Amino acid sequence: KINPDRLWDSLMEMAKIGPGVAGGNNRQTLTDEDGEGRKLFQSWCEDAGLAMGLDSMGNMFARREGTDKDALPVYVGSHLDTQPTGGKYDGVLGVLGGLEIIRTMNDLGIKTKHPIVVTNWTNEEGTRFAPAMLASGVFAGVHAQDWAEDRTDAEGTRFGDELDRIGWRGDEPVGARKMHAFFELHIEQGPILEAEGKDIGVVTHGQGLSWTQVTIEGNASHTGSTPMPMRKNAGLGMARVLELVEQIALSHAPDAVGAAGHIDIFPNSRNVIPGKAVFTVDFRSPDKAVIEEMEKMLRMGASDICGQMGLSIAFEKVGGFDPVTFDEGCVAAVRGAAERLGYSHRDLISGAGHDACWINRVAPTAMVMCPCVDGLSHNEAEEISREWAAAGTDVLMHAALETAEV
Amino acid sequence: KINPDRLWDSLMEMAKIGPGVAGGNNRQTLTDEDGEGRKLFQSWCEDAGLAMGLDSMGNMFARREGTDKDALPVYVGSHLDTQPTGGKYDGVLGVLGGLEIIRTMNDLGIKTKHPIVVTNWTNEEGTRFAPAMLASGVFAGVHAQDWAEDRTDAEGTRFGDELDRIGWRGDEPVGARKMHAFFELHIEQGPILEAEGKDIGVVTHGQGLSWTQVTIEGNASHTGSTPMPMRKNAGLGMARVLELVEQIALSHAPDAVGAAGHIDIFPNSRNVIPGKAVFTVDFRSPDKAVIEEMEKMLRMGASDICGQMGLSIAFEKVGGFDPVTFDEGCVAAVRGAAERLGYSHRDLISGAGHDACWINRVAPTAMVMCPCVDGLSHNEAEEISREWAAAGTDVLMHAALETAEV
Ligand SMILES: NC(=O)NCCC(=O)O
Ligand SMILES: NC(=O)NCCC(=O)O
Repeated sequence: KINPDRLWDSLMEMAKIGPGVAGGNNRQTLTDEDGEGRKLFQSWCEDAGLAMGLDSMGNMFARREGTDKDALPVYVGSHLDTQPTGGKYDGVLGVLGGLEIIRTMNDLGIKTKHPIVVTNWTNEEGTRFAPAMLASGVFAGVHAQDWAEDRTDAEGTRFGDELDRIGWRGDEPVGARKMHAFFELHIEQGPILEAEGKDIGVVTHGQGLSWTQVTIEGNASHTGSTPMPMRKNAGLGMARVLELVEQIALSHAPDAVGAAGHIDIFPNSRNVIPGKAVFTVDFRSPDKAVIEEMEKMLRMGASDICGQMGLSIAFEKVGGFDPVTFDEGCVAAVRGAAERLGYSHRDLISGAGHDACWINRVAPTAMVMCPCVDGLSHNEAEEISREWAAAGTDVLMHAALETAEV
Repeated sequence: KINPDRLWDSLMEMAKIGPGVAGGNNRQTLTDEDGEGRKLFQSWCEDAGLAMGLDSMGNMFARREGTDKDALPVYVGSHLDTQPTGGKYDGVLGVLGGLEIIRTMNDLGIKTKHPIVVTNWTNEEGTRFAPAMLASGVFAGVHAQDWAEDRTDAEGTRFGDELDRIGWRGDEPVGARKMHAFFELHIEQGPILEAEGKDIGVVTHGQGLSWTQVTIEGNASHTGSTPMPMRKNAGLGMARVLELVEQIALSHAPDAVGAAGHIDIFPNSRNVIPGKAVFTVDFRSPDKAVIEEMEKMLRMGASDICGQMGLSIAFEKVGGFDPVTFDEGCVAAVRGAAERLGYSHRDLISGAGHDACWINRVAPTAMVMCPCVDGLSHNEAEEISREWAAAGTDVLMHAALETAEV
């Protein structure tokens, strides 16, 4: 078993970098804070005797050698970047849990046939640069690297330029590595495990996702002197589309969810009727056909709404992935490890997207989940217990060790 | 009559300072650009032989002497600050029209018994620092100066600090001046004059206004993994309140208008259900009772909506003024001037708030309006014709000259 206190201390140490305003973290990808977090992780990896590899998307790979020079490595890891008002565990637990299993193996002198590599994937969150899971997507051949580097943040700054600026672009070509398997430990970010009192979620599938950026244009004009019938209020059009999004998601519940988390209004002045609204609709379901149907309902329904109001509307798909079925063998390794260690467990569909969803396309992959309090995530109040973290990391270790052949 | 080309050239010259992105202006109050605009206006005033006074809210007063040292001055003017995506005429025409009548009087050697003072009021627009018409409100004794200086912009910067920073705080106590009368020329910002083919609006009343800032709080959480029934989506609550605002305004139309122009969502991340929404509802009517009723309907209806959704809601009044009845004598002077000059005219209720609405409380006041294309204002595409500008300025001059006693 791993050392729960050492794992917890590392989580708390990492959380000091890019502190939030309410006890969580703001360590968004490719900020100075991201750079600092990477440095700390690297120093810990060096202390644990690992050799660091870095690819040209900034993905980090800390390697512990195996006994067979020709064996492909088993990868474990997740991401160190956070939401703007994110928690201390989303992603971080998977990276530092990976480090903790290396430390434990070092303590116990455990050797494996296959090398083990702990990874930190760049820009999992996708808040600063859409889409989410950007660098693991390039690794898996889903996105062209040029396209990924051209993604811009709200200030118009390029991903590629920020990667250079913080000094974490490596020489290694992205996706060149071959993997024997990949395991990602992550907090559930949903309420099921806690509600059912389970220690471990064995993730068999991942929901699919669609991000549609909607731009509604009306006519900015004076709030006081423009008569009601002359208005082309893009903000009101947006309000009606937000209600539509809710109704579309509800009509497919419980097998679908939907909301808009990102909303910008222009010119955003108290006495100007909004001339433009830009917002991103996030629809998810484990069923690809449902996602496609929700997208279609959005495009048709929102176009109707705006047509009736004399507003123009445009849609741009800014992110998306299909539902994922994880590798049977890897899933069995996770389930078996939980079983052997005596942790209560259940199979889960991941509600969130994860790097593992992309890596699953190029390597046998599975995920381990642990509960989080009230299912709350993407919130500074995100919380887990030391025991949950330890149980998840134990299962991650045993699944990885079995696969890497002790 | 005034010199239309000189007036137009000055308007175009001023519009070069703080250009917008679409042919209009972004010269928001107390920015560097506001400072530059003030400097240009001051240099023009000096060229016209005027003596500049400056009070400690940054209000500018350019004085042309009268023949009677004891006579109170007749004031004309408006504001040089603009919306973030504002037009070239909103406010500016009133200030530079005031300057143009001085230039014309100089050309023709016209002397008046009462001095004439051209003013530029600070922060009329209220976008950067709410409420609108801030400095004329302090002048009229409506706001305490300390309170006004403590207003902050979206970055938390204080009005008073920005006034010092751009170097336009004067020594003169605010509101110390006594006025014989005040006339403000302004574009209509609405569609009536153009639609009816009238040159001049004789403004008899101004609508009242109420700005209510609404804060809705829910719970930021993961858009993918939070089940629909567990969500507390502050963005959806806001959407429903925006629909309510529309319905409240429509139910009082045509004697009322309403909309929200300012909307902020937190944390504003694509995969986070909004935990907080802050927006400002702008209700207006020429009837005070209607404004009060709309406010009440908003507070009750929005509280109901949020109560049903498990969201908390708070209201803060961030701006407001009662409907205004302008001074009979001043209104008659404007109407008479239009009549004598042969311009077509009609009486108007101003849909927008103006510095004149506050000054009316401390001096006999009236307004002259000229048409604008499509009634469009608070938009970079705001447009007027040279002839409309000239007609409005002619009427301003003749009303002012009659009142200042040639
Ligand atoms: N796990 C996680 O929060 N990933 C971000 C991508 C998503 O929105 O699901
Ligand atoms: N005239 C004008 O746009 N004033 C700003 C205050 C208001 O919103 O009415």
